[in-house]
Amino acid sequence: MRLFLSFVIALLLSACAGTPSVRGTGDLGLIIERASGQVTLVDTTSRQPYARIGGLGDLSHASVVYSRDGRYAFVFGRDGGLTKVDMLEGRIVKRIIQSGNAIGGSISQDGRIVVAQNYTPGGIKAFDAGTLELLSEVPAEYAPGKFSKVVGLADVPGNKFAYALFDGGEIWVSDFSNPRQPVTKRFPAGIQPYDGLVTPDGRFYLAGLFGEDGVAMLDLWQTDKGARKILENYGRGQEKLPVFKMPHLRGWSVAQGKAYLPAVGRHEVLIVDVGTWKEVGRIPVRGQPVFVMARPDGRQVWVNFAFPDNAKIDVIDTLAGKVVQRMEPGKGILHMEFAPRGENVWLSARDDNKVVIYDTANFALLGQIAADSPSGIFFTSRAHRIGF
Amino acid sequence: MRLFLSFVIALLLSACAGTPSVRGTGDLGLIIERASGQVTLVDTTSRQPYARIGGLGDLSHASVVYSRDGRYAFVFGRDGGLTKVDMLEGRIVKRIIQSGNAIGGSISQDGRIVVAQNYTPGGIKAFDAGTLELLSEVPAEYAPGKFSKVVGLADVPGNKFAYALFDGGEIWVSDFSNPRQPVTKRFPAGIQPYDGLVTPDGRFYLAGLFGEDGVAMLDLWQTDKGARKILENYGRGQEKLPVFKMPHLRGWSVAQGKAYLPAVGRHEVLIVDVGTWKEVGRIPVRGQPVFVMARPDGRQVWVNFAFPDNAKIDVIDTLAGKVVQRMEPGKGILHMEFAPRGENVWLSARDDNKVVIYDTANFALLGQIAADSPSGIFFTSRAHRIGF
Repeated sequence: MRLFLSFVIALLLSACAGTPSVRGTGDLGLIIERASGQVTLVDTTSRQPYARIGGLGDLSHASVVYSRDGRYAFVFGRDGGLTKVDMLEGRIVKRIIQSGNAIGGSISQDGRIVVAQNYTPGGIKAFDAGTLELLSEVPAEYAPGKFSKVVGLADVPGNKFAYALFDGGEIWVSDFSNPRQPVTKRFPAGIQPYDGLVTPDGRFYLAGLFGEDGVAMLDLWQTDKGARKILENYGRGQEKLPVFKMPHLRGWSVAQGKAYLPAVGRHEVLIVDVGTWKEVGRIPVRGQPVFVMARPDGRQVWVNFAFPDNAKIDVIDTLAGKVVQRMEPGKGILHMEFAPRGENVWLSARDDNKVVIYDTANFALLGQIAADSPSGIFFTSRAHRIGF
Repeated sequence: MRLFLSFVIALLLSACAGTPSVRGTGDLGLIIERASGQVTLVDTTSRQPYARIGGLGDLSHASVVYSRDGRYAFVFGRDGGLTKVDMLEGRIVKRIIQSGNAIGGSISQDGRIVVAQNYTPGGIKAFDAGTLELLSEVPAEYAPGKFSKVVGLADVPGNKFAYALFDGGEIWVSDFSNPRQPVTKRFPAGIQPYDGLVTPDGRFYLAGLFGEDGVAMLDLWQTDKGARKILENYGRGQEKLPVFKMPHLRGWSVAQGKAYLPAVGRHEVLIVDVGTWKEVGRIPVRGQPVFVMARPDGRQVWVNFAFPDNAKIDVIDTLAGKVVQRMEPGKGILHMEFAPRGENVWLSARDDNKVVIYDTANFALLGQIAADSPSGIFFTSRAHRIGF
């Protein structure tokens, strides 16, 4: 109740102001409230909410990217909704339904093009970041008349976007240097890529495979070499363990030249050398990992888990090579977001209807924010990074 | 003249507004105009100036850090001046003279403490980022009654700062977890450290040595091991080549597991493996390098030079391992700053009184901004990074 009251008070204060805020945008963020189609806007310095906005549609699996000035959030909903939110005025600037069934989006290196990836109809669509006018689209027609679901969309340098075709078994890279006439290159990748990521420097695109073991890797600096398979044992393996949730590849982390990634179906985090892309170690954890996320300095890696272990968090010390902290911060931990310089981390506890904030140095609870079934948490510092 | 007029018009427009801007701060920046004690504020999306502020004192070798919301710039002047600038209102919020002779500063991980490093009196001072109230100081008294110049100050995780004592030959790490009672650890480093840097992840502190060859390195994750010497041939060497300007260590870059660093006195950029800290290659360039800066994705490394080659820029392709672009963008190129996602780079041409902006993909000139003997260029995206 106390939590709820402080939330109401913060919102009232915000509403009283009436005029848009003159303030910096570097320390703002947005929490997805998946059950109610709302988002809560937060200040990461005061660690308080300052606005709540409804009417964003189906926000299950929603994700967010930011304009390069940090003022506008682009929220991609599951129902094909694309909503532009003004973080300073705390209101929706524009909202369109751009497809029937969507799964996230991205923003170009120059900040001028917002791209959505769609299941139905399969493909990607590019919109003007200012007006949300449709600029162009790339249907994922991998064979005549056959369209694929698109997954794993990521921006890469040169106003390009890389993504994978689940049904088509390919990685595509589309160059939007001319936003109305994108040029696409296709690379065979493997059976049923189900998610993808680009390394933090924007060089390597990796797609996890659902239909076979292994990961498809495309070196974006040398695309003429095509995609190749790495980590040939990565996946469900021969034993076909029960997999409660395929891990998010976007939850992979690279720290100190090593990638930390969730094992599929096993209670382990895998360590892979980024120079050779070979596995060099495994760390036991308390469940099937979903997100495996490094603190920005790479010293810690935080791990959350699939049901039934989704109330737990394990923290790995990358120097010690083992779990050094075990926590139960709330029920249904779905996502985590670090402050850009890593001093604290925000965790969404969906089934406790709150977001909890921890100090990463001493694991002290710094605060909590009421939210209605919170899922993704997205800070404006993402505007300055490659590969979202 | 045309450049000058467009500048005047931009300033008039800005002045007409009269009220502070409601706008994002993620795409703002500040250009130091060293000769006139002024700064020009710029918008990196429109690539235009929007305000000019005078009265900042001696700005030779000035540097800037930002509050975590991106609204406030802290400008450290050569004369010990510390000036807090409001990037939205385009005005000085507060200005103090905190020492007689200073050489830059930094801001803590949590954004609450601004620290200046001083030559006279030698030491560091910590200020409240909100009020600029003095919180504490650490005199660099390395032996009874002997005070050292402080160089190479950098913020590191845990609200700590690492820095080097030129006269004392030591690296110090001060923990400001309690801002009024910092706790300092001392590490012998070598003869006359003259500059320092922390790697982008905040783990390794490196100090270049003026009095001997080699670089002192302290692993901040394992400070009990003390500082050790790496790159034993790095420096002026036996031949004592004429060195026109000691290169900025802050200009080192780490990309793809390799560090690119300016050779001292030689027309070369050295490549060092960050895993072993051994030299693995050299790339010939057209002068004595000063700044060797990687584009954020690490594909390119841009190099500027000491007099008499300070009108030149060489661009190294890190995949090809050689210079792929040679430019003469203006006279007296002192500094460069990349857009946070690397799509363009801003270069200050001091002796041409302008800042030039290039597209890093095709090396096209995108624009130029008039400025009075510009030196440092600092974008607000620095607020989100470790080690400045």
